[in-house]
Amino acid sequence: MRKCILLIFSLFLISVQILPAQGIIKSNTPKRPTGQTDVLGLKCDPIPTVRVGFIGIGMRGIGAVNRFMAIEGVEIKAICDLEQYNLDRTQDAIAKNNRPKAKEYTGVDGWKQLCENKDLDLIYICTDWLSHTPIAVYGMEQGKHVAVEVPAATTLDECWLLVNTAEKTRKHCMMLENCCYDKFEMATLNMAQQGVFGELVHVEGAYIHDLRSLNFNKRTSQTEAYEPGIGESVKKRPGLTGYWDYWRKKYNIEHTGNPYPTHGLGPVCQILNIHRGDKMNHLISLSSGQFGMTEYAEKRFGKNSPEAKQVYKLGDMNTTLIKTQKGKTIMIQHDVTSPRPYSRIHMVSGTKGFAQKWPATQIALDSHRALPRAEMDSVLAVYEHPFYKEAGEQAKKLGAIAHGGMDFIMDYRLVYCLRNGLPLDQDVYDAAEWSCLVELTETSVKNNGAPVEIPDFTRGAWNKLDGLKFAK
Amino acid sequence: MRKCILLIFSLFLISVQILPAQGIIKSNTPKRPTGQTDVLGLKCDPIPTVRVGFIGIGMRGIGAVNRFMAIEGVEIKAICDLEQYNLDRTQDAIAKNNRPKAKEYTGVDGWKQLCENKDLDLIYICTDWLSHTPIAVYGMEQGKHVAVEVPAATTLDECWLLVNTAEKTRKHCMMLENCCYDKFEMATLNMAQQGVFGELVHVEGAYIHDLRSLNFNKRTSQTEAYEPGIGESVKKRPGLTGYWDYWRKKYNIEHTGNPYPTHGLGPVCQILNIHRGDKMNHLISLSSGQFGMTEYAEKRFGKNSPEAKQVYKLGDMNTTLIKTQKGKTIMIQHDVTSPRPYSRIHMVSGTKGFAQKWPATQIALDSHRALPRAEMDSVLAVYEHPFYKEAGEQAKKLGAIAHGGMDFIMDYRLVYCLRNGLPLDQDVYDAAEWSCLVELTETSVKNNGAPVEIPDFTRGAWNKLDGLKFAK
Repeated sequence: MRKCILLIFSLFLISVQILPAQGIIKSNTPKRPTGQTDVLGLKCDPIPTVRVGFIGIGMRGIGAVNRFMAIEGVEIKAICDLEQYNLDRTQDAIAKNNRPKAKEYTGVDGWKQLCENKDLDLIYICTDWLSHTPIAVYGMEQGKHVAVEVPAATTLDECWLLVNTAEKTRKHCMMLENCCYDKFEMATLNMAQQGVFGELVHVEGAYIHDLRSLNFNKRTSQTEAYEPGIGESVKKRPGLTGYWDYWRKKYNIEHTGNPYPTHGLGPVCQILNIHRGDKMNHLISLSSGQFGMTEYAEKRFGKNSPEAKQVYKLGDMNTTLIKTQKGKTIMIQHDVTSPRPYSRIHMVSGTKGFAQKWPATQIALDSHRALPRAEMDSVLAVYEHPFYKEAGEQAKKLGAIAHGGMDFIMDYRLVYCLRNGLPLDQDVYDAAEWSCLVELTETSVKNNGAPVEIPDFTRGAWNKLDGLKFAK
Repeated sequence: MRKCILLIFSLFLISVQILPAQGIIKSNTPKRPTGQTDVLGLKCDPIPTVRVGFIGIGMRGIGAVNRFMAIEGVEIKAICDLEQYNLDRTQDAIAKNNRPKAKEYTGVDGWKQLCENKDLDLIYICTDWLSHTPIAVYGMEQGKHVAVEVPAATTLDECWLLVNTAEKTRKHCMMLENCCYDKFEMATLNMAQQGVFGELVHVEGAYIHDLRSLNFNKRTSQTEAYEPGIGESVKKRPGLTGYWDYWRKKYNIEHTGNPYPTHGLGPVCQILNIHRGDKMNHLISLSSGQFGMTEYAEKRFGKNSPEAKQVYKLGDMNTTLIKTQKGKTIMIQHDVTSPRPYSRIHMVSGTKGFAQKWPATQIALDSHRALPRAEMDSVLAVYEHPFYKEAGEQAKKLGAIAHGGMDFIMDYRLVYCLRNGLPLDQDVYDAAEWSCLVELTETSVKNNGAPVEIPDFTRGAWNKLDGLKFAK
């Protein structure tokens, strides 16, 4: 499917050139076509019942279908996947919910046919990274709103294509950055917006998650025998595991930098009001060598296995630093190949306060002493985000498929805004800004960490909106 | 005193030039004078009784004198300070220990006269940053070993001057990086040396310490009235507080980057065997704007006070990334102007294990699951460094003046090696490598985070020693 998509996609390419200039590596900003305007605060006609088509229902997709069935005003109209097994089990879940069977799409052109279906309002895209932008763009061109898994794009060209298509079609393009909706992240956003941290100075985020087993697992269905990775048990993972056609491992073979920056970046960009009063100006990025994939492959498959002999370009650890127009700094890390405890860091530091989520939850207010546990819990209760009160019970019920609630609140907000004709919480500029790090970090890493300019995807309107506001 | 030192000092300057080249900002490496050789593994004649002179006994110095009196084979021969109050209270401490009065030096040339004293083996320097190198260099020129507080140098010129003087005089020049001797740091060094972490990939260190009050405090003696800073009580700080003549605040006015990198960097460089099998190749560095000093000054002294109107060049938060020859990465942070919990991070990540000290102690071995507390404590007991067993009881007794033991173990090791004619744990190349970040981070920050080469102060011999070994 990917090759097919890329073939079609190459026709759309804008071809942004990376130009080194005055010590900062810059890229050209494509001129906005005449008559086209920005989609900041975009409102569309209310959609009383949102008819959804899901593309890619293997790993993340079936969870999304299940969550959507718990939201009022939604019809699961269509599903698309390359594997019949995924279609079957999703239809089972839909039937279990006493809903009509969804229309099925499959084969290399299935995604296009789904996008062309006239009975859909929203396309929800959970495929591999490289197909995100092509599908999102085609979906918007077919008059649909699109919601797309992270990262929405893997190149600058794709980022601009998403922006231009959203501006041209006046359709919503939301990247599904679920981590923006996690409980602590939303509480700290609330605290920041209420001035608890004072002037914000520095923030940090990360995606540190040991994915070695998943990257090397052969994707199988429940009907096939499953050979567990190191440290895995067949019992613990009876279902599907691994990425379709090893797409994530393949990406790690071809690319370095930070290919998956948005989980850490999204929540802290919201806190800094990026393109809502501030903007990211440039980044510098450094990757370690690659040690973890090879060592793991040697252990699991043997020293002479193709997996062990493969060259993986992705350094184990990437750290990226970003400077904003208002002088704030952002640190973002990525490591999916080391035996480390999971962390997205989520740290917020200002002139009046400090909060951090991983590896230990800490809050300090106007003092260098972290609050004792009970006091911290009280503070978090005071600043609990209203969305958690609103959708909290439903989210809890769906805990297992909703990452403790955040996935559900994300979908719930998306549907709420579509049904009420409101601007979405995350717009296409967020998608482009957070995703552009995929290419820009790689550029910096390949140039010894040289500074790389981050484009202003609003083309001059980054200061037009006054802070992040969730439409009600 | 500083002006006087700088005047004398300017005669010695090597004048390293910063040259931008091939995308990496480089500096020239001064040619080693003919006949001069490196001092890697330098051994000097054993000194059965180490006669010490202390220069600067205000903040850190008097603690050092007290610690040295707990070590066998030491004579406190001389003390030097600009303030009579400091000399008096140090003599009191010496008398309380039933030791003969130390020779006193004071006035602008006091430090030079002390260095010229023929009855000394070791000069222990605890003055302000800018006078470290001038005193250390003069001390070596006068035939003394020198131990100097961190950072040993604040410029590349000074780093090379220390190296060249040590090589020429064949004297020890040890930077007093006490954090290398902290318990968890030494345990993780032990673990790294025994292969517990596998191949090391990435390490982190920091100096995050809210010094706003100290920076703005007028230094007073116990005999004077003391006006407490925000959040301080007179009761809690009855003695001296603040830096002599506001030297730290003055440095923050003039410089950005990371002026104080060694506490985080020292322990992780030892773990990576820097100049003992690997070397730091280049760094990139980014600082936030300055918000914290001004906001604090406005609150404490008023919006129209000179302190509030002062321009401070030091950004609140600096993050620096370093790449080594063997592809490892180091992250170092500095923030002394924000209300954050204290942290030096001290994180070690390898292909087989992970450890972190701040904000929460965590160890994970061959798994992404952090060990439960009891198991972690067992691991730390197994890998407790022998020095802690050797010197542990004495260190505990001195806890209050020894930062939980690390200061004492540092001094104890220094004296042990001098008495036995052994190479010191930290050599002049460590001092230069760790201190050179002061200037190089500032250079990178001023160039938007551009990569800056880190000199090889061993001039080609970074691979001559096979790992860090503590002489016994």
